[in-house]
Amino acid sequence: MSSKPILWNFFRSSASWRVRLALTLKSIDYEYKPVNLYTGEQLTEEFAQVNSKQEIPVLEIDGLRLTQSLPIIEYIDETRPQEPRLIPQDPVKRCKARMIAEIINSGIQPYQNTNVLKRLVNEIGEEKKNEWLKFYLTKGFKAIEAALVETSGKYCVGDDITIADLCLVPQVYAANRFNVDLTNFPHVLRVNSELEKLPAFHKCHAHRQVDTFSELREN
Amino acid sequence: MSSKPILWNFFRSSASWRVRLALTLKSIDYEYKPVNLYTGEQLTEEFAQVNSKQEIPVLEIDGLRLTQSLPIIEYIDETRPQEPRLIPQDPVKRCKARMIAEIINSGIQPYQNTNVLKRLVNEIGEEKKNEWLKFYLTKGFKAIEAALVETSGKYCVGDDITIADLCLVPQVYAANRFNVDLTNFPHVLRVNSELEKLPAFHKCHAHRQVDTFSELREN
Repeated sequence: MSSKPILWNFFRSSASWRVRLALTLKSIDYEYKPVNLYTGEQLTEEFAQVNSKQEIPVLEIDGLRLTQSLPIIEYIDETRPQEPRLIPQDPVKRCKARMIAEIINSGIQPYQNTNVLKRLVNEIGEEKKNEWLKFYLTKGFKAIEAALVETSGKYCVGDDITIADLCLVPQVYAANRFNVDLTNFPHVLRVNSELEKLPAFHKCHAHRQVDTFSELREN
Repeated sequence: MSSKPILWNFFRSSASWRVRLALTLKSIDYEYKPVNLYTGEQLTEEFAQVNSKQEIPVLEIDGLRLTQSLPIIEYIDETRPQEPRLIPQDPVKRCKARMIAEIINSGIQPYQNTNVLKRLVNEIGEEKKNEWLKFYLTKGFKAIEAALVETSGKYCVGDDITIADLCLVPQVYAANRFNVDLTNFPHVLRVNSELEKLPAFHKCHAHRQVDTFSELREN
């Protein structure tokens, strides 16, 4: 743990944003290396040296190069057990937090990533792509809302921050960006609004990173 | 833990198959409740009483109804710590096993599920659907192969069964079913073939379940 962790990421990538949150909540200082997904910087020879899978986020920590946001967050929480615990200690709460994280990670995000959207625009056009987005995001948010009715307190699972919250905020941002209506999901909106008040969530927001496009930048 | 766990699942669903493997490897007896995804049984009012998200697998255990295969497997391993440990004890191995599981769970499976494939056939036709499948499966298997080069021993991560193995076998089956060529992925094929020799993997195979279609049934 001698050298500072390095995070290869992109301001708008949901998975990157989750890892920024984990590092920030755990007070782990890190070097931010931007990889622009829009210009395809992840596909360069140079980045292939960092990650042959040519995907972000990549976290270099403890001499390892880790990929996949949820396993990275589990690793950070296991090796840095200081508060807040991102994975609850109680087995039932752990399972619920992971379940909500997975509804987003495997149930929504794969249908909205940059690569898929580009492919869909080419194959079925802009309008049908938007229908696709609306369908999968609405389906996913229905599942999150149903889960939050049972599990939420102030945050997704009770009153403590968990891995589920790290996934929720970037997903709500994505829904707004894609003009998906969330008014039927009051638990989602309430929890998201509580989370946005927290300093770590303010700091890690897509619009406040070094690589945020200037027209999107907020203070 | 007085009553027998119940697993709502479908013989061919990858996520169901992973949970069957976890229960079987842990020697946990369970009741198999078939839900036919092809006839849309998961969309009935009756099944909505079991899971309002209308998805499988659902595991009823310890008075809980759990969804999402990876969190279910983590829960089983945490609450039934007998060997085999499906999540390794070492933090680095844990992370690697989860990473491979996620490459499959969030990086491949969402692009091949029944709902998505039906939608794609309607929108872009059979041929383009097959190109889509080939693209996402090949991309995913490249990532798995690259990971296995570093992590595999006899199985995905060293010489012990992990959550990664539970995801690999159903994914290889799916690739074969969709005619995706795996000859460029020798580590995948080798590990898969080792796993198929194990009694639990034989027992949990899609072609040996009570709801397996008769034309597919094997002994």
